[in-house]
Amino acid sequence: MAEPLDVPALTATLDGTYVEVRNLTRKRLVEYAGVLDDARELDRAAFRERVKDVVVELAATGQTGLGFPPEHGGGGDIGASVAAFETMAFGDLSVLVKVGVQFGLFGGAILQLGTQRHHDAYLAPLVRAELLGCFAMTETGHGSNVQELGTVARYDLETREYVITTPDDAARKDYIGNAAAHARVAVVFAQLDVGGASQGVHAFVVPIRDDAGAPLAGVRITDDGRKIGLNGVDNGRIAFDGVRVPRENLLNRYADVSETGVYTSEIENPDRRFFTMLGTLVQGRVCVGGAGINASKVALAIAVKYALRRRQFGPPGEPEVLLLDYGLHQRRLLPRLARTYALHFAQEVLAGQLHAVFSATEEVDERTRRALESRAAGTKALGTWHASDTIQECREACGGAGYLSVNRFDALRADTDVFTTFEGDNHVLLQLVAKGLLTDYSSSFGELDQLGMVRFVAGLAVETVIERTAVHKLLERIKDVLPGSGDDSWDTDAGLLDPQYQLAMLRWREEHMLSGVARRLKRGMDGGMAPAEVFSRCQDHVIGAARAHVERLVLEAFVDKVASMAEGPNRDAMGLLCDLYALSVVETDRAWWIEHGRLSVQRSKAISREVSSLCRRVRPIAEDLVDAFGIPAELLRTEILAEDPLT
Amino acid sequence: MAEPLDVPALTATLDGTYVEVRNLTRKRLVEYAGVLDDARELDRAAFRERVKDVVVELAATGQTGLGFPPEHGGGGDIGASVAAFETMAFGDLSVLVKVGVQFGLFGGAILQLGTQRHHDAYLAPLVRAELLGCFAMTETGHGSNVQELGTVARYDLETREYVITTPDDAARKDYIGNAAAHARVAVVFAQLDVGGASQGVHAFVVPIRDDAGAPLAGVRITDDGRKIGLNGVDNGRIAFDGVRVPRENLLNRYADVSETGVYTSEIENPDRRFFTMLGTLVQGRVCVGGAGINASKVALAIAVKYALRRRQFGPPGEPEVLLLDYGLHQRRLLPRLARTYALHFAQEVLAGQLHAVFSATEEVDERTRRALESRAAGTKALGTWHASDTIQECREACGGAGYLSVNRFDALRADTDVFTTFEGDNHVLLQLVAKGLLTDYSSSFGELDQLGMVRFVAGLAVETVIERTAVHKLLERIKDVLPGSGDDSWDTDAGLLDPQYQLAMLRWREEHMLSGVARRLKRGMDGGMAPAEVFSRCQDHVIGAARAHVERLVLEAFVDKVASMAEGPNRDAMGLLCDLYALSVVETDRAWWIEHGRLSVQRSKAISREVSSLCRRVRPIAEDLVDAFGIPAELLRTEILAEDPLT
Repeated sequence: MAEPLDVPALTATLDGTYVEVRNLTRKRLVEYAGVLDDARELDRAAFRERVKDVVVELAATGQTGLGFPPEHGGGGDIGASVAAFETMAFGDLSVLVKVGVQFGLFGGAILQLGTQRHHDAYLAPLVRAELLGCFAMTETGHGSNVQELGTVARYDLETREYVITTPDDAARKDYIGNAAAHARVAVVFAQLDVGGASQGVHAFVVPIRDDAGAPLAGVRITDDGRKIGLNGVDNGRIAFDGVRVPRENLLNRYADVSETGVYTSEIENPDRRFFTMLGTLVQGRVCVGGAGINASKVALAIAVKYALRRRQFGPPGEPEVLLLDYGLHQRRLLPRLARTYALHFAQEVLAGQLHAVFSATEEVDERTRRALESRAAGTKALGTWHASDTIQECREACGGAGYLSVNRFDALRADTDVFTTFEGDNHVLLQLVAKGLLTDYSSSFGELDQLGMVRFVAGLAVETVIERTAVHKLLERIKDVLPGSGDDSWDTDAGLLDPQYQLAMLRWREEHMLSGVARRLKRGMDGGMAPAEVFSRCQDHVIGAARAHVERLVLEAFVDKVASMAEGPNRDAMGLLCDLYALSVVETDRAWWIEHGRLSVQRSKAISREVSSLCRRVRPIAEDLVDAFGIPAELLRTEILAEDPLT
Repeated sequence: MAEPLDVPALTATLDGTYVEVRNLTRKRLVEYAGVLDDARELDRAAFRERVKDVVVELAATGQTGLGFPPEHGGGGDIGASVAAFETMAFGDLSVLVKVGVQFGLFGGAILQLGTQRHHDAYLAPLVRAELLGCFAMTETGHGSNVQELGTVARYDLETREYVITTPDDAARKDYIGNAAAHARVAVVFAQLDVGGASQGVHAFVVPIRDDAGAPLAGVRITDDGRKIGLNGVDNGRIAFDGVRVPRENLLNRYADVSETGVYTSEIENPDRRFFTMLGTLVQGRVCVGGAGINASKVALAIAVKYALRRRQFGPPGEPEVLLLDYGLHQRRLLPRLARTYALHFAQEVLAGQLHAVFSATEEVDERTRRALESRAAGTKALGTWHASDTIQECREACGGAGYLSVNRFDALRADTDVFTTFEGDNHVLLQLVAKGLLTDYSSSFGELDQLGMVRFVAGLAVETVIERTAVHKLLERIKDVLPGSGDDSWDTDAGLLDPQYQLAMLRWREEHMLSGVARRLKRGMDGGMAPAEVFSRCQDHVIGAARAHVERLVLEAFVDKVASMAEGPNRDAMGLLCDLYALSVVETDRAWWIEHGRLSVQRSKAISREVSSLCRRVRPIAEDLVDAFGIPAELLRTEILAEDPLT
């Protein structure tokens, strides 16, 4: 690296289309930087109120309403709203999640599942945060399997009302953000019962508190109490004892019940209807993934800067060695830095697709929607696991200093911890990804549960399954770049830094893992095993295939980004990080490639050496690379960086 | 598993020699189970006082003084004190760590580094917790590299006092437990300066607060504030402005200064003296490792029981499937359960060795002491990483319920988080382990820093290094059990469940990794690289070799334990878990064995299949296996197990 990086230009590359909204958000975060201290020092009740006040104040600035239609006081720009949300992850995450609950989940449900009458009634006040609401989907006994929710909404023909009932404790709404203290209204997901026939899960607007904040008659609300993190958000439980709401409170974009009790829907198949409704809520997952990736940036910025100040051990009579000059410390931080950049660019592609689909003036075909949902699910899973892993490693890399709350890892780690299991448990989300790949988002995709997927796949020839996958079509020229046993380059380390080689490796793994899953499902079913048992036994392969798919998408996004940049030190640096990401992925899973005949032992060892070598090359630009994240200094005012007690 | 397990007998197997003291500790924990609620509900200041009160009350029962000499009010049983401490990890961990600070670190330093006059003056009151103290070693700028501490203790010939000074902010004592509020006295580690000559780090008893709790003149104490966890412990910073203490306050077991200012020590080499002093404090590491392992048991008990109650998805018209019937869920929890048992038995061996060395009536040779320290370091590293990993996985496996503090993962995870970096950073500890292996705990071991180790090893033939290792001697019959390429069993899955095969695999890896490190160090030095650079570049191999060593010791302990048990279902169950531990280790690192020609691709795949199969076989006895930990029900009274809202 002869020439220095142009850090502001790199920040601009990262900020992309939404540089303005990101900079405005940075400004807001600096104004509210004191919330980071409040999170440590206020008690739970006071901090909840503080966070609520911040959310209300932010709403007044327009910061939180960017994704809503202008006619209801919003900014009318989905992409901008995602960019603003992601950037808010540099600050306190209770504020972020409370914003997500109010505007993303509650507001999003009204917007996406409701019709004009709901928009007119609720959107403007909720965008202004005058009407606070919650999103009451999850129940104590039912999280991921939303279709089996226990709450019932029975249509009462006589009064033309829905009667909402919680039949047992397992069906109480649980972990609901905004429920314990602040929400006046809930969007409640319940089994719609019309004339004794169940029509599946639908969403209803249900008032839960009066203007003074007291629960309404028939609504029992309890507090979920202290949580690992996000204690500025008031999560709670809600149970309903025959609570009545007018017929108009059904969010009726996809189905309705007439006054006389006739159920109608444009979508005949109930499973497909259900998945279509859920699919409109995809923005939440996009936002959580992006938030996880940005929280990782904060942790890395602190840990990298600390490692460039803290010294430990060294030759006698000389200054001790900087932590980041240790090979192991580089290995702990720098591949995670590379993966953070990689995920950032993959998230950018995803957010762009979300914006395109939800801003489209013409009808978007179902396949495109399902593919978007799948990509959102996969990116959310990898982005949030990455956050947990990276923040934890950064904390440990800062030793005792990392354990002090003032140095930010406490809240970063605790607040993001639930990201891996809320807005869809990551494992369940990856199963969704695999289902999409294995069924090619076929028209029946929306109707298939896990066991249906098992039967569907087992009913096809493995070749048929694979030939329809997108990755299969990318693999035609594989022989040119991916050496196999017997090829000339099989035992050499030539071409490791060729993006085409790296892409071919990840594509080949994805295709091979998918066909492995298809084969296993088929074999299990052919052997007479019950579908549930077949699924259970190949579940880790299902997850593995989905992960391989997402890692391939992430690499493609990074490679494309590098290719799009102007030549110069910034592009060189991104190329270096892209190599480091790609080869780290291969190194981590190298046993698999060796086992499947696509990596020789010699080449595998060469990859490990190359990863170490890449780390040494990234080392001199590490601080520039974390500076380029553009995290305001006010948000990094940790003790370990602000003073200089280390030398 | 035709016959059911005998759970009480399995608990007795786990409790081992110290069943009585463990049961007594369980009883105490039940009496104080309310502290688990206090940890969630009290504010920081109140919880600190609560924890202090509990520690004082426990001291009155004799619970915390088991390791001290009877003549000073102790129980005179090192092994019992470790067993009691480990068992306390089932309860609140602030109480545990405060006990560790007061009796292990502070009391241990007085006991091990002091002489009769210190014992007479301090032991009885500190055992009764009338005198609260702290252990002031770590500084802001110096944690792991204790030899380079900045605090100075200058001997003033005129007044016959030591003058304790903190020269700069980097040298302030930091993260010191008991310092922020409760300690009256500190054991301060400082560079001893006698007549202008530095004699290296020594320990001094320094009063820091008056009876009313106010800092004494010249002592500046600040609070470390909120931490990720352990907020019942008052960690703080201490700086000294020329604080004077009498000559008698030097803890003078290994060195002394005469009234006339003559420095004397039985141990001439200053490095060896330093490491000898530090070595006497090994019990702290043994205790922390054991606590990590037992905290993992609590997490596993909750997660396994939850997975046997919570259902999700399944065939239409039937009850949903229990979480633990999913292959992936088994994969997430059961190998960790096996590893917990493995580490438990390894910890038992270690604690037994500690007891033997520290209870010996005759002088114990230095090599035995160094080997004990090495084993303690390695077991602490693996035991505490295991705790972080296991508790986190258990939290995620319980989804949203796992995120609620009432369900215990919050405090378990947050409180144990610092275990990986306190009492020795785990990476630094594994470097210590590797140093011992590579130098065969030679007489010069105690004198070698990292770079000295590099030079020492590089100066020997690789064969010489390896032939002196313990593992080399265990590998003589390797051909019989460890197939190599070309052998008949190379491509089959025969013998995977043979403990001799598993042991041979782990021994071979250890030896090969050690020789790889030796070769790399030699090559680097021969190539003219600076020792620091040589070390940096092969640091991950150093860590890898140490980890391989400890995993081998853990497997040996487990295999020995199984062999010692009477035939029957309990032994069968332990054999199953031992296989699962061993094959999980191989599976995780299978790329390495393949790369080094000791595992065929066919066999590698067979091992993955076998791990899944073993998980399915452990599944029916999983609840018995966590019940056998003997964690009192009062300590598992989490919401997710106490009620039944899931069905």
